[in-house]
Amino acid sequence: MNADPAAHVSADRLWERHQQLARHGATATGGVNRQALSAEDIAARRQLIDWGRSLGLSAATDAAGNLFLRFEGAMPEAAPVLTGSHLDSQPTGGKFDGVFGVLAGLEAVEAIRAAHVKPLRSIEIVAWMNEEGSRFAPGMMGSRAFTGASPLDAILPVRDASGISVQDEIAVVAAAFPDVPLQPLRRAVAAYVEAHIEQGPILEREGYSVGVVSGIQGKSTFRVTVRGEAAHAGTSCRRERKDALLAATAMIQALAAALHDAEDVVKFTVGSFDVVPNAPSVVAEKVVFTIDLRHPESALLRALGGRIAGICGRNAGACVAEVKELTTAMSFDFPKDMRDLIRGVAERLGIRTMDIYSAAGHDARYLHEICPAGMIFVPCKGGISHNEAESAKTDDLAAGTRVLAQTLVQLANMP
Amino acid sequence: MNADPAAHVSADRLWERHQQLARHGATATGGVNRQALSAEDIAARRQLIDWGRSLGLSAATDAAGNLFLRFEGAMPEAAPVLTGSHLDSQPTGGKFDGVFGVLAGLEAVEAIRAAHVKPLRSIEIVAWMNEEGSRFAPGMMGSRAFTGASPLDAILPVRDASGISVQDEIAVVAAAFPDVPLQPLRRAVAAYVEAHIEQGPILEREGYSVGVVSGIQGKSTFRVTVRGEAAHAGTSCRRERKDALLAATAMIQALAAALHDAEDVVKFTVGSFDVVPNAPSVVAEKVVFTIDLRHPESALLRALGGRIAGICGRNAGACVAEVKELTTAMSFDFPKDMRDLIRGVAERLGIRTMDIYSAAGHDARYLHEICPAGMIFVPCKGGISHNEAESAKTDDLAAGTRVLAQTLVQLANMP
Repeated sequence: MNADPAAHVSADRLWERHQQLARHGATATGGVNRQALSAEDIAARRQLIDWGRSLGLSAATDAAGNLFLRFEGAMPEAAPVLTGSHLDSQPTGGKFDGVFGVLAGLEAVEAIRAAHVKPLRSIEIVAWMNEEGSRFAPGMMGSRAFTGASPLDAILPVRDASGISVQDEIAVVAAAFPDVPLQPLRRAVAAYVEAHIEQGPILEREGYSVGVVSGIQGKSTFRVTVRGEAAHAGTSCRRERKDALLAATAMIQALAAALHDAEDVVKFTVGSFDVVPNAPSVVAEKVVFTIDLRHPESALLRALGGRIAGICGRNAGACVAEVKELTTAMSFDFPKDMRDLIRGVAERLGIRTMDIYSAAGHDARYLHEICPAGMIFVPCKGGISHNEAESAKTDDLAAGTRVLAQTLVQLANMP
Repeated sequence: MNADPAAHVSADRLWERHQQLARHGATATGGVNRQALSAEDIAARRQLIDWGRSLGLSAATDAAGNLFLRFEGAMPEAAPVLTGSHLDSQPTGGKFDGVFGVLAGLEAVEAIRAAHVKPLRSIEIVAWMNEEGSRFAPGMMGSRAFTGASPLDAILPVRDASGISVQDEIAVVAAAFPDVPLQPLRRAVAAYVEAHIEQGPILEREGYSVGVVSGIQGKSTFRVTVRGEAAHAGTSCRRERKDALLAATAMIQALAAALHDAEDVVKFTVGSFDVVPNAPSVVAEKVVFTIDLRHPESALLRALGGRIAGICGRNAGACVAEVKELTTAMSFDFPKDMRDLIRGVAERLGIRTMDIYSAAGHDARYLHEICPAGMIFVPCKGGISHNEAESAKTDDLAAGTRVLAQTLVQLANMP
């Protein structure tokens, strides 16, 4: 009997579970489209709950639609250690983004049980609701509501493109699992560790299976609404037009030029662009587009974001532009103690690590505000993510999970 | 008993029917959204058939979903005179575009009957299927199929944004009217006259109730597909990105600059723009946008259209642009005899007319290819069209309808 949890991590079981979860929302071209609180999400949750219960874990949810699987510790009253990530995907997403963090947590707990280790604190595997923000914007709704970073009231009324609200869909999910009890938001948490694919090319290029995440890049999101006037494409003169589409494309080009840095550090993305009425022979009446802006230096992120409204206004022509800042999350570093713990665990397991900065946002950002938090990265193929071609190596996923398992035991035995 | 059909045209009845038809697809803000072959279109067709049958007209349809109401002449075997327009609207359309031509035809026939005039040839009121092309692109499908300008096989497989085909929806419409018989396409037509609101400001500005349409401006439509690569907005570097949205907006700005003419005669419109996956934190994988290009000089229209692929290619950056020309219809003039006939009828009715060029396309374009065709314009408020604020004056609509009624009688009495 090996009492070392890491020795009980099964690379094959972990890989197989990724493949099984990927069936829920599978696309014809090998990717995954599993939107938050959708039927596919419910199916994935059902699978996860089944796996958890077969290990003796108890499932719970909360008013924000987060899902928890609890491995009870020797001190059930003590604040638990949390680990996990999310099950929702981008519309053209892959099998690993988010899912790995949840399944690594499950695998780690299964390994801890198999090693007959009973930690002091309970360990809970969590699937946060709507990390991606593609169906309901902005994302990380579950972790924001859980930690109190956003009031629940700010999240429940958000609607998707077809007019369905988060509140409605949380009720649908809850009804699908009548035997999963509701727990309060803002529970005390002893520590949080999230495993995730890197979503960038660095670990693969440098030849490491595990990265100790030093911090998360800051991010601001904006919604720009451009209002013009509908007109007939054949009869209205250019001089009389208020063409919202032409104005919006001018704004985007001007923004791309103004935010261009030779060092290629600024990340500026217009990912969504919706036209009203969106008809070939009607001059556009309205365009709504989003801006995703990131920079590792918080002061610079704030300064760049501050320029957006002016640039849009100067390029609006005869239209009117309204720029709304949706979210701004500054860059930050995880606590040194947590990073040292993860790095030390990996060293003792003989797994080489490098420190790595997260260019992507994660739920760990919000957990960091209420408890010691950290992240473990594993490489993904070619750094490709938010893409159906997203892939990762079985051995890398297992290496990250072994580090996670030992880290969780150490955290759960903290007094 | 007044034997002059024009004297029996009722401005009030004509106006009231516009209001009644506008209920089918009425928007909350006073406009109309009645897409081709939709439930709202079926409801409007039902209303039109009811009105026609109450006048003793017989309804018929064809394989392209066009709807005909026939007022039988003294020579039932002779090719009929057709008049009409369309019932479908733009997504943010008004109460008059298309509808006026259909209801003016109905009112004219009602007036001819009331005057106890029995013309030699039958007169058929027609509602052409999908003139606007907003649900199924490109438009004027019904008149193209009827005249043979496009084979039926090219039209039936076209799908809307939700994947429903023209063929499926024509079957739904046919099933809704089991007692409306099917007639062949490409029937012989003696003449065609279409009444329509101007959709421009000239008649109103110049103070005329009726315009004799001299011809129709040429129009080319294109679909541009920009292919890039989906990537994570936080982790992918600008240099590595293939951002289809950034490339598409650069193309549109470059096209607008290149097609800019100081005289403001060129009409260049990008009305629809669709992004895949259209998620805020995903670099766009694909953008499809449309171009509507018009110019009264056919040679210039062709030359301008010929520049589009090159401009798109030069602005594609790391992406690939595919430019497909969907339709090109050259500028043309209606026959002088038809224009003289309409002008003469108006003069005898004491209605002042001016000659006017149509900047918008109409089904009359395709009828012009198979029979003597002409158009009668009436002013619309502020020249506004393809807009929920579209409006027209009761008296102007009636004046155009009086000219139409007399013109139809003269055409139907041609040997």
